[in-house]
Amino acid sequence: MNRNRFEKMLLLLREKGLDGVFLAPGSDLFYITGLDFRSDSRLKGALVTQEGESFFLCPSLHRDDVDGIRDTMRIVEWEDHQGFGPPLGTALRKTGLQGRVSVAFTRGIEAGDMIDVLAAARDAGIEIAAVNGFTLLAPLRSVKSQEEQAWMRHASAMNDAMMEAFAAYLKPGLYEHDLMRFVVNFHETHGGKPRVPCAATGPNSAKPHYGRDNDRAVEDNDIVMLDCGGWYGGYSHDMTRTFFVGAPTDEQKNVYETVLRAQLAAMDKVRAGAVPRDIDAAARDIIAAAGYGEFFPHRLGHGIGLDGHESPYISQANSVPLVEGNCFSIEPGIYLKGRFGVRIEDLVMLTKSGTEILNRFPKQLMVV
Amino acid sequence: MNRNRFEKMLLLLREKGLDGVFLAPGSDLFYITGLDFRSDSRLKGALVTQEGESFFLCPSLHRDDVDGIRDTMRIVEWEDHQGFGPPLGTALRKTGLQGRVSVAFTRGIEAGDMIDVLAAARDAGIEIAAVNGFTLLAPLRSVKSQEEQAWMRHASAMNDAMMEAFAAYLKPGLYEHDLMRFVVNFHETHGGKPRVPCAATGPNSAKPHYGRDNDRAVEDNDIVMLDCGGWYGGYSHDMTRTFFVGAPTDEQKNVYETVLRAQLAAMDKVRAGAVPRDIDAAARDIIAAAGYGEFFPHRLGHGIGLDGHESPYISQANSVPLVEGNCFSIEPGIYLKGRFGVRIEDLVMLTKSGTEILNRFPKQLMVV
Repeated sequence: MNRNRFEKMLLLLREKGLDGVFLAPGSDLFYITGLDFRSDSRLKGALVTQEGESFFLCPSLHRDDVDGIRDTMRIVEWEDHQGFGPPLGTALRKTGLQGRVSVAFTRGIEAGDMIDVLAAARDAGIEIAAVNGFTLLAPLRSVKSQEEQAWMRHASAMNDAMMEAFAAYLKPGLYEHDLMRFVVNFHETHGGKPRVPCAATGPNSAKPHYGRDNDRAVEDNDIVMLDCGGWYGGYSHDMTRTFFVGAPTDEQKNVYETVLRAQLAAMDKVRAGAVPRDIDAAARDIIAAAGYGEFFPHRLGHGIGLDGHESPYISQANSVPLVEGNCFSIEPGIYLKGRFGVRIEDLVMLTKSGTEILNRFPKQLMVV
Repeated sequence: MNRNRFEKMLLLLREKGLDGVFLAPGSDLFYITGLDFRSDSRLKGALVTQEGESFFLCPSLHRDDVDGIRDTMRIVEWEDHQGFGPPLGTALRKTGLQGRVSVAFTRGIEAGDMIDVLAAARDAGIEIAAVNGFTLLAPLRSVKSQEEQAWMRHASAMNDAMMEAFAAYLKPGLYEHDLMRFVVNFHETHGGKPRVPCAATGPNSAKPHYGRDNDRAVEDNDIVMLDCGGWYGGYSHDMTRTFFVGAPTDEQKNVYETVLRAQLAAMDKVRAGAVPRDIDAAARDIIAAAGYGEFFPHRLGHGIGLDGHESPYISQANSVPLVEGNCFSIEPGIYLKGRFGVRIEDLVMLTKSGTEILNRFPKQLMVV
């Protein structure tokens, strides 16, 4: 349990006029309590009120996984055969909640489970107005501490090392799933937890989030887009590079240079106080001016930390200025359906000493 | 799009008095539409009304992934910079929904996203009463067709083959993550999609859902519990075996034989018309009579199909009689904290010809 973060969370609840928060299994729960659960068919999570009353709703099967918080938070167990409703209702009443209250639900609880939580509360005389809590803790989590910054650096350094090994490995004849396995094996054997990489070859690179079949082989004069991320020490890395196996065509060269110029222009805008919308525009304008505006269908970047995607998002919709401690991706792309695509992605962090690009692997057009 | 299943779903909506259903990314959506999406930070899903009006809410980034349903369902796109609210509100109105309506939400949508869906509907003049839709399609999905039964057989046959190879591979000195990688590699190289296996050695086997560190090595006279599942052709397999590396102690032998007797007694009760509660009791009574009642903390089994866990659940809480086409696990266990655990799990299916145990790998006490 991180008491400092817990207290800051209570301040956020007060600021937003929320009576409580349900910390669902996932990174918000981990950030506050250190408990490392993922969402599954048995609901679990911490309920915390604005006054700091709290309990952890725990399937009896997971009794032994919550020893880390027993000193600081009451454990409310439920059994498969009874369901969580009655114990939850009793526990809610004991926190002092009553009447009509507002509770935020963080990411990690199914809509159906929340509906059942509201019903259990109603049975206990508490009418919960549910609030989307996806970004409740963003003001805390998006500002990385010195220690978190060190973990972010380490994770990206490991991803750089992987990309270097990958560039040496890549050659015609390898299947997409070979490329994926190479990435996964590298990270696993170096102590990381990779997510499933996106290794898109040839026309598959035109799909921004390719990953369905992974059964195409690299050919001569192919393009290969590798987007790979994961975790070291609990903190994320994420990088994309687009390689050419043999000489690119003039059009491919032009698309690549456009994406690279867009990425560099956006990077150039990154600093504390800058507005994400403007950074997105810096890249988007260059791509549009080159005639590819309609082929860049996603936001420019996303925050990153415990989660692969978190606040702050670098998008046309975000006008909240960046602050020191923010860490996020800059990843413009151009995707020409049925033909090819290019994306270049680096992570960047705003530290005391300024803007720090975490990925050092080169991004000049690379022919392997 | 599976028109037959779609029509049956409309009948279910009528039976339950629901005005509509939101098919969230996941297996329910796949079962009805063939679209293979997983939940992520960009909401997507199909809204279907009781009258059969429908649309698919689609992030523009996934435009090319929904070609399979364009003929039968309107695609409502939304862009990152606008959010899904306004297009969703307009689309909801066009379905004819108005005033106060009840809509079920299937598994695969975050609580926070559903809260935003309800707000978008409210802005469009529609007050949605949200209903937990986890089991809405269970009456359809829990009855496997002939074709689905064939896929279930195939998937478990592949898992049997894996377990045979595993028994030959297992030896002292291997780490838990070596065992896990063996399982994953077997399935991947045979065309399957494994889930992360649970390979618990020594005292780790006393945790029913072990999987945190995976860094213990197999020792002489060790116990090894392997729970492994995944998918072939979209359908799941799932099996647990507990091996002895060297001779078991008398107590271990006794625990093993108790679990095995419990499993066989439960299997003996399995037939169309049997009540899951009674099947659970058949196993639980044997374990309790042997003095281990408190060390069997979970339900006896779970249904399985497109999902690893689905209806029907074989638990003390389920009194709905089984029917032909049901497929589920029978998996009693005894877990002695800090010492060792034993679980034995097989899948079983109710077919036209009777009760068919899908796993054929032996379950007599096995010393490797």
